[in-house]
Amino acid sequence: MKNRIVYKYIGKVLIGFSLLLIIPLLVAVINHEHITPFLIPLLISLLFGFILNTLKISSKKIYSKDGFIIVALSWIIISLISALPFIFNKDLHPIDAIFESISGLTTTGATVIENVEHLSKSILFWRSFMHFIGGMGVLAFVMAIIPLSKNDKSMHLLKAEMPGPSVNKLVPSIKKTLFYLYGIYILLTLVEFILLVIGKTPPFHALLLSFGTAGTGGFALLNNSLASYTTFSKVVVTIFMFLFGVNFNIYFLILMKDFKSAFKSEELRVYLFLYLASVLIVILNTYHLFNNLKDCILQGFFHVSSIITSTGYSIGSVNIYPTNAKVLCLMLMLISACAGSTCGGFKMSRLIICFKSIKRDILKIIHPNSIRCIKFEGNDVPDDIIKSTRSFLFLYIIFILIIMFIVSIDGYSFEITLNAVFSTFANVGLAFDISTFSIFSNVSKIFLSIGMLLGRLEIFPIIVLFSDLRK
Amino acid sequence: MKNRIVYKYIGKVLIGFSLLLIIPLLVAVINHEHITPFLIPLLISLLFGFILNTLKISSKKIYSKDGFIIVALSWIIISLISALPFIFNKDLHPIDAIFESISGLTTTGATVIENVEHLSKSILFWRSFMHFIGGMGVLAFVMAIIPLSKNDKSMHLLKAEMPGPSVNKLVPSIKKTLFYLYGIYILLTLVEFILLVIGKTPPFHALLLSFGTAGTGGFALLNNSLASYTTFSKVVVTIFMFLFGVNFNIYFLILMKDFKSAFKSEELRVYLFLYLASVLIVILNTYHLFNNLKDCILQGFFHVSSIITSTGYSIGSVNIYPTNAKVLCLMLMLISACAGSTCGGFKMSRLIICFKSIKRDILKIIHPNSIRCIKFEGNDVPDDIIKSTRSFLFLYIIFILIIMFIVSIDGYSFEITLNAVFSTFANVGLAFDISTFSIFSNVSKIFLSIGMLLGRLEIFPIIVLFSDLRK
Repeated sequence: MKNRIVYKYIGKVLIGFSLLLIIPLLVAVINHEHITPFLIPLLISLLFGFILNTLKISSKKIYSKDGFIIVALSWIIISLISALPFIFNKDLHPIDAIFESISGLTTTGATVIENVEHLSKSILFWRSFMHFIGGMGVLAFVMAIIPLSKNDKSMHLLKAEMPGPSVNKLVPSIKKTLFYLYGIYILLTLVEFILLVIGKTPPFHALLLSFGTAGTGGFALLNNSLASYTTFSKVVVTIFMFLFGVNFNIYFLILMKDFKSAFKSEELRVYLFLYLASVLIVILNTYHLFNNLKDCILQGFFHVSSIITSTGYSIGSVNIYPTNAKVLCLMLMLISACAGSTCGGFKMSRLIICFKSIKRDILKIIHPNSIRCIKFEGNDVPDDIIKSTRSFLFLYIIFILIIMFIVSIDGYSFEITLNAVFSTFANVGLAFDISTFSIFSNVSKIFLSIGMLLGRLEIFPIIVLFSDLRK
Repeated sequence: MKNRIVYKYIGKVLIGFSLLLIIPLLVAVINHEHITPFLIPLLISLLFGFILNTLKISSKKIYSKDGFIIVALSWIIISLISALPFIFNKDLHPIDAIFESISGLTTTGATVIENVEHLSKSILFWRSFMHFIGGMGVLAFVMAIIPLSKNDKSMHLLKAEMPGPSVNKLVPSIKKTLFYLYGIYILLTLVEFILLVIGKTPPFHALLLSFGTAGTGGFALLNNSLASYTTFSKVVVTIFMFLFGVNFNIYFLILMKDFKSAFKSEELRVYLFLYLASVLIVILNTYHLFNNLKDCILQGFFHVSSIITSTGYSIGSVNIYPTNAKVLCLMLMLISACAGSTCGGFKMSRLIICFKSIKRDILKIIHPNSIRCIKFEGNDVPDDIIKSTRSFLFLYIIFILIIMFIVSIDGYSFEITLNAVFSTFANVGLAFDISTFSIFSNVSKIFLSIGMLLGRLEIFPIIVLFSDLRK
């Protein structure tokens, strides 16, 4: 890494992140809990941030490569810092602590803690707050709150961090785009919080559940996840999980009162169709397991919302699902919801682009001389996007297979192994037959953590970082 | 299908196929068994073949599309005809009979027959002979034995039927290429047969096992597959399974005494490396399950050869394998051995091309202005091949998922469902925890059969056929 701007940027990110750490620290103060678990990482973050930020740079130019490296390195460093509260407060083994922090920031929600009801309030807050930060992206958060250079080169950063095959600026300025995105994000979270409080959820729970829904995370405050809350609250969470799986561009269009464009979105339609079809299939699969249809329908909607958006909350055991429903859920995990949302996985829009490009290839065989463009959401899809979508597919599969191979050394059943990998790689957190990831060996936990990072950052940043380090 | 040449070609294929049916008929005559199970399909094939062959055609031009359609339709029709002996001789349900015949022709070797030791000799012969025909391709067989037009347009047929991303003609003429390919195929089969007889395998068994090895099929003559034969025979089969996983171009180069080019082959090296690494991992995984190391090593080499080449023979239970070995084997099933061999699956060369194209994409991010060609086996890989390789990957996964979803309705465990689909789609036939595919419902058997055909024909021909029918 010859470009010193990389380090300078990471410095800025660390300063921004240290500001975020003030919030859980305040929670600790209010609840008369230890503040050192948050104070130490805050000071470390601030100190290193300042040191890196003093670096003199000769050019402000950020190349595409630098964008990837900044994102990858920032996430790795922030994950390590975020693990510190778990080490200081809960005496977690460092590997467990890092697993938990990566699971939080990547909005996976897989936990190694067997009894979450014993956790202190500040730690519970920290777990869910990590979801909230990680959902929209650590860098996006920082870019939204600290001063940036006026030029738009930081677009490379957004592109590297944001989920989905392509990032569109809603408005010409990045700063404004981030303003709108965060506006929508915070507004939706706030509405959910209020509705949950109306639904008799204790405010602290309501806030943390809203953080988890917004980031499509999945850490819960109770050992049975969301099973103990009121039906009203469960319905609210179901609806908001679905809503956070929608591309935020749609909400922007709605805000701009461009309803026509919003509802014409192909991705939204495919998402809605797959969602409803999946709910129907799960209900048909499980109605014989329930005493009343209402429970069956609620659980069907809830768990499909939870899985397709990679949230990972549950309101009952999914282990009892018949194989057909399990296969469907594992497929939904891999695919996940819309690009430009806070979800993990392959993303609906990539799937659509893949299908359309296949259709073109087949038509090319049938009519060899035809020239066809692929259109998505009304625009031509550039060849670059198609190429990188297909590269992503290959890498997605290869990494899943590699991690599966390593985790399988632990000797758990094939199903548990596969579930663990899918659930972490696609940032879901909910896995059949696994209540806590503490059952896995340290080596597996390390590779599952790497999988969560690869899944959240959509692989390329991490590979670019390591290809660059090797030189 | 406006092009009448499609039908005329299928007519030729049927005539050629009817000639092949004479051989099992003779086996029935020699063993004093019923000949009608073979006579009826022979006559049907001959009759329809002649009728279609009388069609007047205005142009002899075969388009790429026609090649795909001829291959897809021929395989479907021949699979149906090949099922008739099972219906007439064994009273199999038509769906079971079609499953068995598709399993034979696609060289899968998955069976619905619970006790193969009760089968008549002519039916046993037919099962293994289907492997031998299907291995190199039904059309290739026919093109090698019946007169063709002298121009090289039939290359489209070979391309559509032969496994792997690209088909190279060994010599300028197709006819000669086929002559060499079949020469190598038959020679290797013959050598295996002789060695097996030397290894005290009864000649009838030796012949059928050689057919199965050559086509990488896997139908056995005994219920415990190959467990009862001598160690020498097991070693011979192990070696020949490995050899039939090698690209036949390599043998041609060896025949031409171009040893340097032969051993420089990237695909061969990757195959050898993956093979040896897999054997090592399986041995390390299983040595605690055996009383002596010799058995462990033999079974390791045998089963890895059987799985990586999609043959599917076994000499002991693989159900006892630890999860790590199972995951490895399932990965090997999906990947399979070299293109241009008789194996199923994704193929080694496609994997290499995918890896190289990913490497290029990553380097493109690091050095945006660089222009790099992908080289494979010393030649530039055209963009078309890269595109179609990546399309194939997507289709490969999509069809596996669709078929898995349907088979999972039967309600068997997740592991059995996944095994059944991988094992059939990759044309392996050996599956963990499944001794016979008769346990599945008719719907599942139909979709598993479709999967075998899709896997063997590498998907595109079937899709092109159905896209064309829909118009």
